[in-house]
Amino acid sequence: MSKGRVCLAYSGGLDTSVILKWLVLQGYTVVCYLADVGQADAVDAAAIEKKALLLGAERMIIADLQKVFVEQVVFTAIQCNAIFEDRYLLGTSLARPVIARGQVQVAEQYNCQFLSHGCTGKGNDQVRFELAFKALNPSIQVIAPWRLPEFCNQFHGRQDLLKFATENNIPVESSPKAPWSMDENLVHCSYEAGILEDPDHTPPKELWKMTLDPLDAPDAPTEFNIHFDKGIPVKVVLGGQTTTDSVELFKLLNKIGHDNGVGRIDIVETRLVGIKSRGCYDTPGLTIARLAHLDLEGLVMDAQVRDLRDQFITRAWSRQLYNGMYFSPEREFVENSIVFSQHNVTGEVRMMAYKGSVYVLGRSSDASNLYDEQDASMDSLEGFSPADSTGFIEINALRLKKYGLQKQKDGKPLTQT
Amino acid sequence: MSKGRVCLAYSGGLDTSVILKWLVLQGYTVVCYLADVGQADAVDAAAIEKKALLLGAERMIIADLQKVFVEQVVFTAIQCNAIFEDRYLLGTSLARPVIARGQVQVAEQYNCQFLSHGCTGKGNDQVRFELAFKALNPSIQVIAPWRLPEFCNQFHGRQDLLKFATENNIPVESSPKAPWSMDENLVHCSYEAGILEDPDHTPPKELWKMTLDPLDAPDAPTEFNIHFDKGIPVKVVLGGQTTTDSVELFKLLNKIGHDNGVGRIDIVETRLVGIKSRGCYDTPGLTIARLAHLDLEGLVMDAQVRDLRDQFITRAWSRQLYNGMYFSPEREFVENSIVFSQHNVTGEVRMMAYKGSVYVLGRSSDASNLYDEQDASMDSLEGFSPADSTGFIEINALRLKKYGLQKQKDGKPLTQT
Amino acid sequence: MSKGRVCLAYSGGLDTSVILKWLVLQGYTVVCYLADVGQADAVDAAAIEKKALLLGAERMIIADLQKVFVEQVVFTAIQCNAIFEDRYLLGTSLARPVIARGQVQVAEQYNCQFLSHGCTGKGNDQVRFELAFKALNPSIQVIAPWRLPEFCNQFHGRQDLLKFATENNIPVESSPKAPWSMDENLVHCSYEAGILEDPDHTPPKELWKMTLDPLDAPDAPTEFNIHFDKGIPVKVVLGGQTTTDSVELFKLLNKIGHDNGVGRIDIVETRLVGIKSRGCYDTPGLTIARLAHLDLEGLVMDAQVRDLRDQFITRAWSRQLYNGMYFSPEREFVENSIVFSQHNVTGEVRMMAYKGSVYVLGRSSDASNLYDEQDASMDSLEGFSPADSTGFIEINALRLKKYGLQKQKDGKPLTQT
Amino acid sequence: MSKGRVCLAYSGGLDTSVILKWLVLQGYTVVCYLADVGQADAVDAAAIEKKALLLGAERMIIADLQKVFVEQVVFTAIQCNAIFEDRYLLGTSLARPVIARGQVQVAEQYNCQFLSHGCTGKGNDQVRFELAFKALNPSIQVIAPWRLPEFCNQFHGRQDLLKFATENNIPVESSPKAPWSMDENLVHCSYEAGILEDPDHTPPKELWKMTLDPLDAPDAPTEFNIHFDKGIPVKVVLGGQTTTDSVELFKLLNKIGHDNGVGRIDIVETRLVGIKSRGCYDTPGLTIARLAHLDLEGLVMDAQVRDLRDQFITRAWSRQLYNGMYFSPEREFVENSIVFSQHNVTGEVRMMAYKGSVYVLGRSSDASNLYDEQDASMDSLEGFSPADSTGFIEINALRLKKYGLQKQKDGKPLTQT
Repeated sequence: MSKGRVCLAYSGGLDTSVILKWLVLQGYTVVCYLADVGQADAVDAAAIEKKALLLGAERMIIADLQKVFVEQVVFTAIQCNAIFEDRYLLGTSLARPVIARGQVQVAEQYNCQFLSHGCTGKGNDQVRFELAFKALNPSIQVIAPWRLPEFCNQFHGRQDLLKFATENNIPVESSPKAPWSMDENLVHCSYEAGILEDPDHTPPKELWKMTLDPLDAPDAPTEFNIHFDKGIPVKVVLGGQTTTDSVELFKLLNKIGHDNGVGRIDIVETRLVGIKSRGCYDTPGLTIARLAHLDLEGLVMDAQVRDLRDQFITRAWSRQLYNGMYFSPEREFVENSIVFSQHNVTGEVRMMAYKGSVYVLGRSSDASNLYDEQDASMDSLEGFSPADSTGFIEINALRLKKYGLQKQKDGKPLTQT
Repeated sequence: MSKGRVCLAYSGGLDTSVILKWLVLQGYTVVCYLADVGQADAVDAAAIEKKALLLGAERMIIADLQKVFVEQVVFTAIQCNAIFEDRYLLGTSLARPVIARGQVQVAEQYNCQFLSHGCTGKGNDQVRFELAFKALNPSIQVIAPWRLPEFCNQFHGRQDLLKFATENNIPVESSPKAPWSMDENLVHCSYEAGILEDPDHTPPKELWKMTLDPLDAPDAPTEFNIHFDKGIPVKVVLGGQTTTDSVELFKLLNKIGHDNGVGRIDIVETRLVGIKSRGCYDTPGLTIARLAHLDLEGLVMDAQVRDLRDQFITRAWSRQLYNGMYFSPEREFVENSIVFSQHNVTGEVRMMAYKGSVYVLGRSSDASNLYDEQDASMDSLEGFSPADSTGFIEINALRLKKYGLQKQKDGKPLTQT
Repeated sequence: MSKGRVCLAYSGGLDTSVILKWLVLQGYTVVCYLADVGQADAVDAAAIEKKALLLGAERMIIADLQKVFVEQVVFTAIQCNAIFEDRYLLGTSLARPVIARGQVQVAEQYNCQFLSHGCTGKGNDQVRFELAFKALNPSIQVIAPWRLPEFCNQFHGRQDLLKFATENNIPVESSPKAPWSMDENLVHCSYEAGILEDPDHTPPKELWKMTLDPLDAPDAPTEFNIHFDKGIPVKVVLGGQTTTDSVELFKLLNKIGHDNGVGRIDIVETRLVGIKSRGCYDTPGLTIARLAHLDLEGLVMDAQVRDLRDQFITRAWSRQLYNGMYFSPEREFVENSIVFSQHNVTGEVRMMAYKGSVYVLGRSSDASNLYDEQDASMDSLEGFSPADSTGFIEINALRLKKYGLQKQKDGKPLTQT
Repeated sequence: MSKGRVCLAYSGGLDTSVILKWLVLQGYTVVCYLADVGQADAVDAAAIEKKALLLGAERMIIADLQKVFVEQVVFTAIQCNAIFEDRYLLGTSLARPVIARGQVQVAEQYNCQFLSHGCTGKGNDQVRFELAFKALNPSIQVIAPWRLPEFCNQFHGRQDLLKFATENNIPVESSPKAPWSMDENLVHCSYEAGILEDPDHTPPKELWKMTLDPLDAPDAPTEFNIHFDKGIPVKVVLGGQTTTDSVELFKLLNKIGHDNGVGRIDIVETRLVGIKSRGCYDTPGLTIARLAHLDLEGLVMDAQVRDLRDQFITRAWSRQLYNGMYFSPEREFVENSIVFSQHNVTGEVRMMAYKGSVYVLGRSSDASNLYDEQDASMDSLEGFSPADSTGFIEINALRLKKYGLQKQKDGKPLTQT
């Protein structure tokens, strides 16, 4: 008799194949699940399904979540200029809630009592997946093999996995594994572990999957335009071609970024469990879209709204996503503000990508009256009385004068260098 | 009899030459002052002094403030990763307090009752200079000609200035003026006004002074190392040459950035008087130093300290500098935290600049125990019990489970796409 | 011929009566305007109108804005627990936008080219009124007599006003003026200036208008209940009587607070023009409502949402109101979050007022599942695995262990006292 | 042979007596430790030591930590006006780091391999103690009996503890236990659990230990003065008596508060493990000292510094203490700012306590020039030009005018009610 039905996140790779077999051997019925969130080398659905069934899975479900990923999460990241620790565009974090929700939906559909995944016990992803699982359906239990003593004791490293695979007729790719881990989706590819654990070891040229080496990028720049409506990219124009479909448009930005080597970073970050870790990421399209969006906001967004948004909303949403708190009341609270903040972020940004960088060439919008050439002009005094500046300065200086006088009194005049 | 002695910020250009002559004609004695904060085209001290005296100045004082500028302000900007509205590295704002303090020192030395400058009435710089003046010495009055009706009514534009110059034997450069304004110091050159007032007008190729066009930069990248001690760059190593002097080191970073086209931005910002304005800036060395510093902090700084620092300190200091609040109790308060935060930001960052971009190749430090390869490794469980992650997740999920259940009860289950 | 039509905020008091007459003498046609925002001693409409017309006003408009004041602004203040500098409940600031909007409406209705008020030139209210005026209708100009040299030079103090009143047949109350200024509305009465300018001078017993002296309050406490719906007080139950009308309900809270001496504060605050100033305020009903609301939020609001709300929203809204930025994009942005945050702040709070204080006796709500007696109980382990706490602690401690070890290494062990 | 030496936090009560005996029976050698942080009913050292030794402890160490508690932690809380969720003054949280450090010191002194405590598995205190232990000395292991299955399974409730006590000759107090839990130190007494788990159950009159019922407090108010030096209370003057010793002074404030019924709150808070919980606290002296300190800051602290301090420092420090993060780099970082912020918070506050409330009667200071009666006065224009206010308003209004015009254009004029 089955110990119950498990919905396992299954990629077809060595780790999750071993887990699948191990679960089957433990007596579980296993429904395999794979979310297509735009991994490159397009998911070979048929091969993966065949392998899953071969290893004893009851069925294999492959869900195409690209559109929901782009429209519900990636575009929100663009709307709030999401960034973590000033550098990281959160590519992995953005995909996790979408994948987790899809997995719970499948688990519910097939009456699974368990959810399982192949995440390690020291990483961020176990936390992100499981926090999502608990919020989505707390009645389904989690089996995290890499945190189970009986599993960990059996599998101490890759050799143990390969041995188990051989013993259990699990097909293994013949090509040698790269000396680092990768995780890819429509937004980015991440690289960590292995040789990258030395933070002073420069990533080798062949590591990067989603971007050309800037040194190998074309000698001629690529010019293109991005149109936004309420902060969402709705049109990309490149070489006379217009793309408006959300997924297609994002893939086009990825291609522009890829070809011009845009969006590589190499950082040391602090995982949410408190461990410092080195990661490399190439994020071509989102790097471009984020810059364009930031630029357009400069033109149309009120400075005080922006200041509040930057300090509170952007930071909070980014942190929530990194920490796996997508399905939380606080993310809902913050996202309500993001939407509200974008009501006039509508317009066009002209851009250029070239050998690793992306530049803004110009921007325009009809949605806001905040930028006005005459107001901006130092030569025009239309609608402006320079004497007002005197009053503005004097009032702002009231407090500073007292500060300076106190410093003099205290024998530490501000004029001291 | 003199109406009093004025200390005038004098650059030798048309505007301040007219102001100098106008003040003399009004009956003031004028002491001219010029701060050398690293403007390119090295300040031609002799020529400027000669011109000032020719126009009737009592004396011309030229102060070399490069070292104090770099060490007191620019390095602090690096220590806190200062940035304004996510893009602007504050080049002009950083120099203003140093220039203003030098001017007040000169005014005090020569018993001036007045301070004067050539800033327009709609801009940021009038505010920055005068707030500094009021804090430094509130007993000295300010003459801001571009806010005086009698001056503004006489000079409506450049033609009026040229006419006055001709009538008053003020020498004028024969080369035509660029159709935009510039302001340069060791950190950056800024470009605004004129043709740039159309935010969709791409800056012409010849505009940029401190950076080569990335398209014209060398085909081979430049590799170099930056060493930090408590967040301050103390050594740059390039091609076997080591530079440690603060000003020389910063100029070397400028040269690397210049040659590789690093640090150009083109933005619409909101001036502190509330007017939106378009500015272009090239900031080669600071762009490089800021990235290196950010990167090193990833390796050595505690994540919680960083989070507090980013949200409060970086933002506050940047805003204070932009707003001309350098000589203020709040800047002093914030700067105290910056220094404290940097106690272990000591180490080396290896970098590469290439055609518009700068990259981190690796980093190392002996100053912190936070990064540990074994901790970071997903393969090692030394000192880590994976079961702890289960507890961590469960406790964090307590609140989220209730959230999900409430959503179900409200008929809006989180599993809905 | 008239110089134009002025809409003057007119209270019937000495200052605005002098201004009214002065404007008439200057050749303006004057429409007088008075907003009833719940000043005690109910506005004697007939007497004020009679006086205005006697002094030459074209007409006198008295607008009852109590309901809009309570429902649009005061209830929002309750919803976000608004407070300024930890002490002040913003009574004056809350009323200003409502009064200003009413005045602009009247000015538009009667084709006034000018708006005028009797605010002094050093205070907050001039700023609050005029920022509202500019946002509401920038084409109407402002006449602020206390900032006009011709007016200030004529009226140096109260004696000059009285002399002018006598000369111009302006009726003056025979009772002597209190040696301080007051401003009253439904929310509070403020007291400042005069003898209060010495911050060490205790306000005299007779100063307070809206609260009994706690020493004179009844010896028996008053018990009552407040019901909230989405953060808004919708019902007050006192002694078996139920009140649900917004204005009546708020007045009842005022009465409870008044009778029990609740809501007096005496502070030194910093005006928005940067000057420190001493103010005393009695705010009976809002003090009670704010405490009840805070308490209910403890029961029903998610802690992370609350944390974000407290840090950003409460502070921002309070500051915006204090600074006269009600009619601003940033207030609109923040208020959108306030509303969203209150969706389940529905329930009942039982309270007691007694001799200066107000206490919560208990609270209940059906709107949230966050509080659960079994969860809270230290004795029950239903749905909770204590071992999870171990994991939670261990993960949180990872970073701290390294911190402690580094301190030991640095020779400053944390165990040193 | 001993399983090792345990340092157990031992109070002499039923729970820790059972734990002590249980540890002894398990084969551990036990060093008992009790920190005197000012629990009322002064710790009866001799009786507790006798009981510990009777139950098999190797030794009993009682450490008087009152002075270090007051001077290192409580005074810092006063300096930053620490508060949690707007209501709770953190009494328990403040004591925990001091107690934990003392325990680790004792453990090190007596070569203990283990630290143990009687905290439950769902509460805050286990987290606070153990995070401190890990930071202070990560090599000492923790035994938390209430999270051990073998212990929890043996002791399901109070009856099991009493049974074990009888069986093991553990003396038990004959007086019945109150139907709630208490924890007391110099700062407050907390009450939770039992009948208080119903959040609508009003605490009974006899619950409160550190404050008289306001209804029973004297009919005459108590007047007294508090003097601060750099934010620290250094002198209390009451009825002609002056107290300057830190502990004595704080106890005097406690007595004033106690006698006048000051400092009771009853709230629902969210524990750091995410569970909502109801707690009642009476905190007489700290409530008084915090108000006095806040008031003095109004007089002497720059408003911009205060704003930054309130938003970042006060919140962060309070949260860190609540969360048990005292021994952390972020607390050290924040505390550095607290100290800096207090350099001129020196002066005297006159106060009055009466039947549940405490009031400020006046304040004075020589340490700051920020408050100036002439500046504050609406009648004096010395050093102030009212025309400056016009400029200040106009500049601030630039952005708001555009906002209002855009609203008109969008068909939603701001004048709409």
